[in-house]
Amino acid sequence: MSSENYQQRKTFFDQLLTIYGRKPVLEALQDPDMQVYKLHLAHSNKEDGIIRELRQLAEQRGIAIEMHERKALSRISKNGKQDQGVAADLQLSAYQPCSAISGDHLQTAPRRYIALDRITNPQNLGMIIRSVAASGIDGLILPRRGGAPLTALVIKASAGTLFKAPIYHCEDLDAELLRMKDDGATLCCLSSHAEHSLFDYKAQGSMVYILGNETEGVSRNLEKRCNARLRIPMHNGVESLNVAVTAALIAFSGI
Amino acid sequence: MSSENYQQRKTFFDQLLTIYGRKPVLEALQDPDMQVYKLHLAHSNKEDGIIRELRQLAEQRGIAIEMHERKALSRISKNGKQDQGVAADLQLSAYQPCSAISGDHLQTAPRRYIALDRITNPQNLGMIIRSVAASGIDGLILPRRGGAPLTALVIKASAGTLFKAPIYHCEDLDAELLRMKDDGATLCCLSSHAEHSLFDYKAQGSMVYILGNETEGVSRNLEKRCNARLRIPMHNGVESLNVAVTAALIAFSGI
Repeated sequence: MSSENYQQRKTFFDQLLTIYGRKPVLEALQDPDMQVYKLHLAHSNKEDGIIRELRQLAEQRGIAIEMHERKALSRISKNGKQDQGVAADLQLSAYQPCSAISGDHLQTAPRRYIALDRITNPQNLGMIIRSVAASGIDGLILPRRGGAPLTALVIKASAGTLFKAPIYHCEDLDAELLRMKDDGATLCCLSSHAEHSLFDYKAQGSMVYILGNETEGVSRNLEKRCNARLRIPMHNGVESLNVAVTAALIAFSGI
Repeated sequence: MSSENYQQRKTFFDQLLTIYGRKPVLEALQDPDMQVYKLHLAHSNKEDGIIRELRQLAEQRGIAIEMHERKALSRISKNGKQDQGVAADLQLSAYQPCSAISGDHLQTAPRRYIALDRITNPQNLGMIIRSVAASGIDGLILPRRGGAPLTALVIKASAGTLFKAPIYHCEDLDAELLRMKDDGATLCCLSSHAEHSLFDYKAQGSMVYILGNETEGVSRNLEKRCNARLRIPMHNGVESLNVAVTAALIAFSGI
């Protein structure tokens, strides 16, 4: 394989999102707007109603079906306990590894990103994806672990925008943020007692806003990396906003 | 009773929110931050565990308990099918009838309100209440019917801010909005194809932003009343935002 070919194939595979479970995969196959690259089934599945339906839908749509040993399927779904012997690779047009945000990228124009640190509620995650897609902010940085996985619930809460939203996935959020900081980006976290208001603070160059877990907020180690702490001014003794609302205010604040 | 006394009593009763059902009322009584004015019980209740617990909590907190015939309790809860023989009046500090927004009020300073037309999802309603309370916008106009009732689910989604948020309740939203328009307020509704951007449009004087049902949007008859239609500029082919996100962008857009 030529190195150009390799790079093309790598880019292609980096854009795949693997979902699992019988119902989520069925819904993906039933939705004509969803680009499904491949259906994965375990040999151990009984050929009952839903498995037959999955096969028929994939065949009608010309989607490749691959059969696997049970263990191999677990490795594909990365969740053998919940995959029910079924997984599918979805092609997302704007889903790519965080490494695609290069130093050049950050330095040639001021860009804005939101990074999520352990957002566990799928409703919140879906709403955040929807606001990111709609706002035109440069992207959502999403670690593969520690938060809600990209399941059918998230797709639903995103109102289908998961397939259009610029999402940058990564394995190690801390390492990626440090790298982006070295490349000149300003890291900000939201905090109710911070000095600067989100609506007034403008850094020179690119910015990454870090949003933390619904209960605990941003992890200590990530908070330490930040160049600035920002607050959203609040009235009536209210102490915090829903994280999806905070994300929307950030995403649209640059407009 | 003197007329002054009458007015005071009327003001007091207008601020009460009646909730119903065993679990919601139990949670209200268990929460020391919640001001409960009265516990209502039906004679027909069996004095089982939860009814005993309700009684004990009310007695400990010095809250009056009133006993009613089953039918009378239905009239108090306004939902005999779901009240389970239990209701409670909560005192909300900033809950009042829409008539409190007088013409003088609208004309002496430019004020901003959000009005909800049939928002049926309790999560959305709770999030909207939380954003309204936090933003310092002048109030949320909430018809008593047609949308999600103010239940425990809404209280939870509001993160307890229901008890602080400036909420103006009304029976007939159309009539109230017409009256406010006559008093000089500009009525706006959100629409994806509108000419003006929410972020650019500034009316002189007071404004009311109308948000419609999650699926159907703003009712036709209300839309006709509006002076302006506003859009939130969107990217990536996204057609709409979650209604709670839209409410937050409106509420904080004046800052």
